[in-house]
Amino acid sequence: MARITLLTDFGTGDGYVGAVKGILASQAPTAILDDVSHDIPPGDLRKASRVLGRYWKLFPPGTVHLVVVDPGVGTARRGLALVADGRFFVGPDNGVFSRVFSEAETWECFALEAGSGLLPAPASETFHGRDWFAPAAALLATGTPPSDLGEPFPDPVVLTDGEPRREGEWMVGSVVEQDRFGNLATDLPPGLVGQAGEVSVEGTRIPFCRTYGDASTGGLIALVDSDGRVELAVRDGSAAAILGMGVGDEVRVRAFPRA
Amino acid sequence: MARITLLTDFGTGDGYVGAVKGILASQAPTAILDDVSHDIPPGDLRKASRVLGRYWKLFPPGTVHLVVVDPGVGTARRGLALVADGRFFVGPDNGVFSRVFSEAETWECFALEAGSGLLPAPASETFHGRDWFAPAAALLATGTPPSDLGEPFPDPVVLTDGEPRREGEWMVGSVVEQDRFGNLATDLPPGLVGQAGEVSVEGTRIPFCRTYGDASTGGLIALVDSDGRVELAVRDGSAAAILGMGVGDEVRVRAFPRA
Amino acid sequence: MARITLLTDFGTGDGYVGAVKGILASQAPTAILDDVSHDIPPGDLRKASRVLGRYWKLFPPGTVHLVVVDPGVGTARRGLALVADGRFFVGPDNGVFSRVFSEAETWECFALEAGSGLLPAPASETFHGRDWFAPAAALLATGTPPSDLGEPFPDPVVLTDGEPRREGEWMVGSVVEQDRFGNLATDLPPGLVGQAGEVSVEGTRIPFCRTYGDASTGGLIALVDSDGRVELAVRDGSAAAILGMGVGDEVRVRAFPRA
Repeated sequence: MARITLLTDFGTGDGYVGAVKGILASQAPTAILDDVSHDIPPGDLRKASRVLGRYWKLFPPGTVHLVVVDPGVGTARRGLALVADGRFFVGPDNGVFSRVFSEAETWECFALEAGSGLLPAPASETFHGRDWFAPAAALLATGTPPSDLGEPFPDPVVLTDGEPRREGEWMVGSVVEQDRFGNLATDLPPGLVGQAGEVSVEGTRIPFCRTYGDASTGGLIALVDSDGRVELAVRDGSAAAILGMGVGDEVRVRAFPRA
Repeated sequence: MARITLLTDFGTGDGYVGAVKGILASQAPTAILDDVSHDIPPGDLRKASRVLGRYWKLFPPGTVHLVVVDPGVGTARRGLALVADGRFFVGPDNGVFSRVFSEAETWECFALEAGSGLLPAPASETFHGRDWFAPAAALLATGTPPSDLGEPFPDPVVLTDGEPRREGEWMVGSVVEQDRFGNLATDLPPGLVGQAGEVSVEGTRIPFCRTYGDASTGGLIALVDSDGRVELAVRDGSAAAILGMGVGDEVRVRAFPRA
Repeated sequence: MARITLLTDFGTGDGYVGAVKGILASQAPTAILDDVSHDIPPGDLRKASRVLGRYWKLFPPGTVHLVVVDPGVGTARRGLALVADGRFFVGPDNGVFSRVFSEAETWECFALEAGSGLLPAPASETFHGRDWFAPAAALLATGTPPSDLGEPFPDPVVLTDGEPRREGEWMVGSVVEQDRFGNLATDLPPGLVGQAGEVSVEGTRIPFCRTYGDASTGGLIALVDSDGRVELAVRDGSAAAILGMGVGDEVRVRAFPRA
């Protein structure tokens, strides 16, 4: 049974999602359509890449992951079809697949050819999700191999993260994501602080906990998040609001032994 | 395989969508349920009609489009079942189907009869989506013809748009929709300005582009949108915010030849 | 055909929903996944319970209702599998199932055992929706009885509502929910005011109507809501905004005979 997941920055209120689903329903009528999100902030490629990284491998092999966060729609940017560890992907070549490239054991990438062969030329210059990527996803979901959709393309756009560094007793990284709860994900690996009882963040010593509920309400903590990185959080509150920090901000962390 | 799409102004946070889906799952258990949107602004019939216009024909024949934007719930307003170009529709008779009537090659409309025959009397006066329209959609999805749900009704409510007009060298229309990205759709057909290199909007000359990415970041442009009308947009920004314009505002456009 | 409904406070923007759906798609590949909501306010157990109460019984027997509103994730709070009137449920033991317990004719509850037998130990301390509840829901959807997932647990957490009381000619209750439209649901049963022509709310006499459309635009009314309780509403407006009231506020209502 074919499945197609949808990740976009369309919002749901304007019907663009309906248009994409209509194409998929018409061209891959037995495929199951699973919404992941249509609420990626408009054009936020890094967020889209991180969100995709959170689920792509949890779906079974054969799943088609359609990703349309596409601020360069209608320009010369390529469209891609990929296969990575048995899952398929369709979307623009702008970095939204960065986490797939870094996490997959094996991947192959193809530059979509439109207007020749299997894929029609897009009917609009502003809505390739409907006119180009949805038909490509439908083809993959109905058994067309990605190599039939275009030439191999070994050099797709990859967004790179900063590298955490050491400064004496401090680890210096940055906030890479803020979620709905105000939790701040960093790029700091837990190995460096994971045995600590406390860490110092922005000059304040806070406990290093196992989970949110180990903190008192309103208390700032550090913990290892579900992606395996150091996260700053507040029980029943927002670390982003309390620290006044957001994506891109530097985070300096120093570990102190368990008392 | 039957499909039912859902378009409402319920929001998702209150569980009204769950109630409607529960009825559909019970009464049309093999139908696929495709969310389009539950985020239509409360009671905004024009927006619902435009959103529906964006996708109804892209779904395959046999699809049932359930639309519940229903500020007159419980009053004398009728409920409708329609068939248009092979797709089915259920919802209130308040104009939400205006675009279907104007876009379909053929349509037939029936006034739902509740409390007699196939459809039960609604159990509430405030939630006909659950009590009336969902059961009707389930009946259509399981093969009941719309003519079995009520008498033919040839005169449904239709919302009309203004007509763009010419004033000397100017075309005068209005903003008919604002989307998530702050793009402003107008009712101006592209033929009038499509060959222009620039257009004048609100006294400012702006380029007429093929797609968003042809503009510089933050630059206001005009283009032909994915519905085939003139749209005002800002690359990586909001035309609505920059122009201070919204739905219903007049737009005056004048074309200048390509330099 | 197995169905799994999803109710969470994850929001959709961060990909947590995608992770849960990926597990379900892998471990219960033929189950239909029906989103109800991911927009429960973070950690709002009462709202989650009320929303669940709005739909759980409308789905057909055999449906699995997955509920992940879980501010105590990673602490000693239990996980539950239940069966109630033929529907199945998985989620934390924190009161989110309160309405199921009060509304079901029969129910049985089991405390999930992780790390032994069918369910793996959670891979994280912060995302049991992905690591624990989704696998349990997949097991139920593929035919495992809930009694195989843990020991009977007859004493789950139940959130209790206040009891409306009588004070002379007044009924005193409280606002128990505010929905997207600004409607204020109370815990007052309609029997006490249902024959009235008017009610007095906060010192103002307002009409007792059958439905929203019976009021004039902007006019405050009382009515019986789709859950069968007294609700305060404003046609094409927000009762919450006009009255300045919200969840938990006391409501004093007095009935006056129809003029």
